[in-house]
Amino acid sequence: MKIIIDAMGGDNAPLEILKGTMLAVEEYGISAILVGDEEIINKCASDNKLDLKNTQIVDAKEVITMHDDAKSVLKQKSGSSMAVGFRLLNEGAGDAFVSAGNSGAITVGATLITKRINGVKRPAIASVMPSANKPFLLMDCGANTECRAEFLYQFGLIGSLYMKHILKYDNPAVALANNGTEDTKGTAVVKEAYELMKNAPYNFIGNIEGRHIPFGDADVVVADGFTGNLILKTYEGVAKVLMNGIKSAFMKNTVSKLSYLGVKSGIDDMKKQFDYKEYGGAVLLGVKKPVVKAHGSADARTFKNAVKQAVWFLDNNLIEEIEKSFETNE
Amino acid sequence: MKIIIDAMGGDNAPLEILKGTMLAVEEYGISAILVGDEEIINKCASDNKLDLKNTQIVDAKEVITMHDDAKSVLKQKSGSSMAVGFRLLNEGAGDAFVSAGNSGAITVGATLITKRINGVKRPAIASVMPSANKPFLLMDCGANTECRAEFLYQFGLIGSLYMKHILKYDNPAVALANNGTEDTKGTAVVKEAYELMKNAPYNFIGNIEGRHIPFGDADVVVADGFTGNLILKTYEGVAKVLMNGIKSAFMKNTVSKLSYLGVKSGIDDMKKQFDYKEYGGAVLLGVKKPVVKAHGSADARTFKNAVKQAVWFLDNNLIEEIEKSFETNE
Repeated sequence: MKIIIDAMGGDNAPLEILKGTMLAVEEYGISAILVGDEEIINKCASDNKLDLKNTQIVDAKEVITMHDDAKSVLKQKSGSSMAVGFRLLNEGAGDAFVSAGNSGAITVGATLITKRINGVKRPAIASVMPSANKPFLLMDCGANTECRAEFLYQFGLIGSLYMKHILKYDNPAVALANNGTEDTKGTAVVKEAYELMKNAPYNFIGNIEGRHIPFGDADVVVADGFTGNLILKTYEGVAKVLMNGIKSAFMKNTVSKLSYLGVKSGIDDMKKQFDYKEYGGAVLLGVKKPVVKAHGSADARTFKNAVKQAVWFLDNNLIEEIEKSFETNE
Repeated sequence: MKIIIDAMGGDNAPLEILKGTMLAVEEYGISAILVGDEEIINKCASDNKLDLKNTQIVDAKEVITMHDDAKSVLKQKSGSSMAVGFRLLNEGAGDAFVSAGNSGAITVGATLITKRINGVKRPAIASVMPSANKPFLLMDCGANTECRAEFLYQFGLIGSLYMKHILKYDNPAVALANNGTEDTKGTAVVKEAYELMKNAPYNFIGNIEGRHIPFGDADVVVADGFTGNLILKTYEGVAKVLMNGIKSAFMKNTVSKLSYLGVKSGIDDMKKQFDYKEYGGAVLLGVKKPVVKAHGSADARTFKNAVKQAVWFLDNNLIEEIEKSFETNE
């Protein structure tokens, strides 16, 4: 298994990307193609005493930054590490592509370079999220700002295949994010999607309100990319604020600091349950090859987990499963 | 000051509504009109030894339930406590109306019975929300599932007047909820709203992402009612799950239970900061008289705080301030 890595994408590139890749090489027995400025990569590795074993470097001088236009991956910055990574994936030089770079550019690259699976109307960004119960998949997290009803319907299908084949959920429960549970709720598009999903070949359980999402009432939560992105980030933000609050409460004085020892294991369980680094990022679902978008702020461990997502994709033949399902259902 | 109370609305009506009203009568020196089935109200009061002083009862036999259509407040259930409450407000029998009943019906009643302030295109539901920093207003939380750009523009204006006159914020910062901070982000409607808001007579600070909302980066967060409702409820849900998690961590064993004593004051500060009961519910902004929607699950204290919102409305002449602003700016 050979994974193509955008060595220059993300806030902590290249060091954390290289470290994370090497952890993945070690742990999953893969080999890697590091795409980026060869000189910078080699200098970073030698400065930090990283042995880049089982990797090769493909030189690419340009970098797509967070401020670049998403479409720059196609022409303007076709010499960037991300663009070269996508082309290598297309040519079959590697089996999957992982980048912590510009989300918009990754979406454009996945859609227009890797290309859609036959029958898929819109690829989307899917994130595995923590809940009080068990992890669930939120889709779309930002690829498609505006969606037609049939896109939402397809997100339900693709998302349920992910949960079935990757996280091994039995008959995953798919719900539509809405401002109420009644079937009369939502925008015109959401109401139309509800009608389509009622007759879907997956386990559609109806609408889900925001307050039930964090309790894990659904295994797949479907939303357009605008709404999904706001749900995802509000979720992360509230969790971060409250985790900071807990920390402050324990740091208040000597007694509270001592108290932490007595409750540490319980708090650690909770932190672990709400750990966003566990899945390392999001996946682009609906395209012909595995593309993983690692968190922009990924450290080595988070990036390693993003590579794990690519490994899971391949180990479980998710692309083939999606292709098969679209041949049958469409 | 006389406040009209829907005695039959909400999950805990009439007992908690009566108790909350009496707390408000006591604390704010107001008088109240209780609207609902006179027999039930009197029996509930005597069973629970509540002295309904400074109140009068207006008999209304019907009740709008959570399952009734929102429009039922207009005709089908015109004899309900909510419909009678709205009519009493119109006739000037009281100065404000508070209900913990069906949100949709309250929105319809406020819009079509109380009616819009001149120039206001769509009244909206506004909620004061906790943050890591200071409270902020989220608007719209569900009245208008689909919005035109000018509605969002107006929510910014009305919301900033609320924060200025009620919570006494100096030059409140208004932001547009979006899936990115760049001005190219968002749906077509959101992009158009951004352009309008850039030239607004209020302090527009640009787009806000979900992850920054809980940090209190904006004083007013503007969204359509579909998105706003999902933000509001996801926010509440994540906070609830994590608060439950903290509780479990402390309840794990004897040592952790003892540890709680050492950190209790810090955790209590945090709970207080994230206390949704503090504001008691949401307000309908943009209509000619004060209408407050208490939480459906309001207990006595929460309902009392909802009545406090009505008192604030009146004390600070918010309706007049909104009217004045629309005369000047529109």
